Amino acid sequence: MKKTKKTKGSALGKSLAKMAQRVREASRVLASLSAKKKNEVLCAMGSALLEHMGLVLEANRKDVARALKKGLPEAFIERLTLDEKRIGEMAESMGEVSRLDDPVGAEIKTWSRPNGLLISKVRVPIGVILVIYESRPNVTSDCIGLCFKSGNAVILRGGSHAIESNTAIFGILQKVIEREGVPADVVSFVKTTDRRAVDMLLQMDQQIDLVMPRGGEALIREVRDKSKIPVIKHYKGVCHIFVDAGADAAMAQKIVLNAKVQRPAVCNAVETLLVHQDIAAGFLPVMVEALQAAGVEVRGCRQTRRIVPQVVRATQEDWYTEYLDLILSVKVVKDVRQAIDHINHYGSSHSDAIVTQNQENAELFLKDVDSACVYVNASTRFTDGYQFGLGAEIGISTDRLHARGPMGLEELTTYKYVIRGSGQIRE
Amino acid sequence: MKKTKKTKGSALGKSLAKMAQRVREASRVLASLSAKKKNEVLCAMGSALLEHMGLVLEANRKDVARALKKGLPEAFIERLTLDEKRIGEMAESMGEVSRLDDPVGAEIKTWSRPNGLLISKVRVPIGVILVIYESRPNVTSDCIGLCFKSGNAVILRGGSHAIESNTAIFGILQKVIEREGVPADVVSFVKTTDRRAVDMLLQMDQQIDLVMPRGGEALIREVRDKSKIPVIKHYKGVCHIFVDAGADAAMAQKIVLNAKVQRPAVCNAVETLLVHQDIAAGFLPVMVEALQAAGVEVRGCRQTRRIVPQVVRATQEDWYTEYLDLILSVKVVKDVRQAIDHINHYGSSHSDAIVTQNQENAELFLKDVDSACVYVNASTRFTDGYQFGLGAEIGISTDRLHARGPMGLEELTTYKYVIRGSGQIRE
Repeated sequence: MKKTKKTKGSALGKSLAKMAQRVREASRVLASLSAKKKNEVLCAMGSALLEHMGLVLEANRKDVARALKKGLPEAFIERLTLDEKRIGEMAESMGEVSRLDDPVGAEIKTWSRPNGLLISKVRVPIGVILVIYESRPNVTSDCIGLCFKSGNAVILRGGSHAIESNTAIFGILQKVIEREGVPADVVSFVKTTDRRAVDMLLQMDQQIDLVMPRGGEALIREVRDKSKIPVIKHYKGVCHIFVDAGADAAMAQKIVLNAKVQRPAVCNAVETLLVHQDIAAGFLPVMVEALQAAGVEVRGCRQTRRIVPQVVRATQEDWYTEYLDLILSVKVVKDVRQAIDHINHYGSSHSDAIVTQNQENAELFLKDVDSACVYVNASTRFTDGYQFGLGAEIGISTDRLHARGPMGLEELTTYKYVIRGSGQIRE
Repeated sequence: MKKTKKTKGSALGKSLAKMAQRVREASRVLASLSAKKKNEVLCAMGSALLEHMGLVLEANRKDVARALKKGLPEAFIERLTLDEKRIGEMAESMGEVSRLDDPVGAEIKTWSRPNGLLISKVRVPIGVILVIYESRPNVTSDCIGLCFKSGNAVILRGGSHAIESNTAIFGILQKVIEREGVPADVVSFVKTTDRRAVDMLLQMDQQIDLVMPRGGEALIREVRDKSKIPVIKHYKGVCHIFVDAGADAAMAQKIVLNAKVQRPAVCNAVETLLVHQDIAAGFLPVMVEALQAAGVEVRGCRQTRRIVPQVVRATQEDWYTEYLDLILSVKVVKDVRQAIDHINHYGSSHSDAIVTQNQENAELFLKDVDSACVYVNASTRFTDGYQFGLGAEIGISTDRLHARGPMGLEELTTYKYVIRGSGQIRE
């Protein structure tokens, strides 16, 4: 039994290595493709999704039926389920990506040296990207679109619960790529649901340049621990709003409500409200009433509960927690400095906001809060590639290297130095 | 025995974790320091190195004596040895770094959104950087200077053979930092030579943001395999020069000689010469004669040896090899396409050059050679932060993420998004 497993593992390893090598070779062709050609293929992919909608819906029905039989949670089924509208949005998104500027080949800067060398820093694709994701099937087409436009070959490893839907979507899109004369291997889908496949792929640093795990924190930590390949991670969003003394109270209320209630299950929703001690007695009763009216459970520090006794007590753990739910922890702080220190200590360096009319405090907050996105007088919910005007988003990075915050097409590129001379040698 | 070791390991682990946490906290103070203050401290560090030169020389004599006693190779002793001139250069380099622009706080770009949000992408320090290096003691002061200027706290782990020199240099520089009122923990030096210390540090992804291993490929791979923290790597430089048909032969000779002979032991020296078949018969005899006259051992492919029979035969392994020595492999290729394919297959994506008068071939080479630095009509030896005009260099990256090629102060930063609003919420 052990031997069979080993042999099987090694056969799987060989087939994955061959696949990854084919993707690496195809990536070089894709890297040189013109923007015009890439845009044509993207539009054709969008049309193909609409044309073969029936195929996708049929495959998706199988996944959903299996998931229902297994008794998976309702929210999970909701993310898994496709309908005509969702497939329409996937197709539309291909068109949108085709209309974005091609980042490849753009000159970041150019300068000349005293010896006459002309040096340019030029954007190029990263190469081959492995995306590991859980069960939303639209990620399959979104990643293919964004990677294709940015000149990157992509290896997709989707969740087993969406295997039929992903296989169908992938098949339709790859056929278009092939028909358009681009090597089919610029996109690849790992069809086996064997869990060892991921471990094996994470060792292939000669073939794969970047891993993007999209899913829960446990998945991401596992990928980080096992990977020989650089990983860009999105752990979590423990986002804060600090309401300063002298803030416009109505504005503060509106922003806090929006950041908590508009879509509580996403990473840029607020989880902790910090309130300046000088305004807490006036601000908190009204704020908490509005939150509770919107169905939010409020958990407060000792001082908060002195002002609004009806709220639950927040524990030490609350300050670290990403609720992703209609829960908000509230703490009264001494001043902007204590707010900054709290955020840097308990936060996740994702998105944090100050509501203030004090210019000095605003600038201090922007400078010293060590987060990917820092806001003055706006909702943290704007941390998003589309809202930032990047035109697209492959994810949000809570890492510090390469990309931070929302990642669009530019963040899917790296650069090379192009140096033009006339015979220069080093003395 | 086993128990003692475990206890000792855990005591070491605890003390390293405490140290790393102190560095993390100090890094926040450093990140907010003004350029003026940082420059003053840098100048004071330069002066202190000159003032306490005797101390450094004395410590260095102990290291060198120990290394000689151990019979370490001559080249190693050479890199380890400090003299007044070298310490003078270390001090001067502090002054140079103080005169460079502060990258921290620079706006990369700013734009506004239709809803009135003003978004800026602003450079910020990476945070805490761990540098693991072998035995060149000047790395201690270079890294402190560059990290300090770019607002990064740094943890240094130097090679055991240079422990006395490194401790002396570090002590002098840290004392200046403290005297100037900056937290001493913005720089930290791992004094134990216990090998487990590195393994432990590589797990501290909450305290350390980036690891830069500087040394041989084996060290770098080991760090990469063990680290939970992102690593920027410099594996090796298997650099190529392709001499095209119709190239200026005299220019080609001058460039090849420079790239091979001027300093063969460095990563940007050329290792493989590719020659277009149409000019090989005329070009190679003169070129090989010049190389051999300069003491270079030439290893040729079959076609090369038909033209210059006196050269050794190159094996398959030669094409992958970074000689770091007066050895050059030579291959005759059909055309620019075959040259590009050879480089992308056997090279290390470091620095590669074409010598040509053909504009079309030059552009094809620049576009399709997948290396950090691609040259037309210039020596690969220019791949260097100073030569590029970056003013400084903490290393060269052969990675694709975050930084590629020579890394200066800007590459020691990341960015944050600063968003200014007037009460905007997400609809």
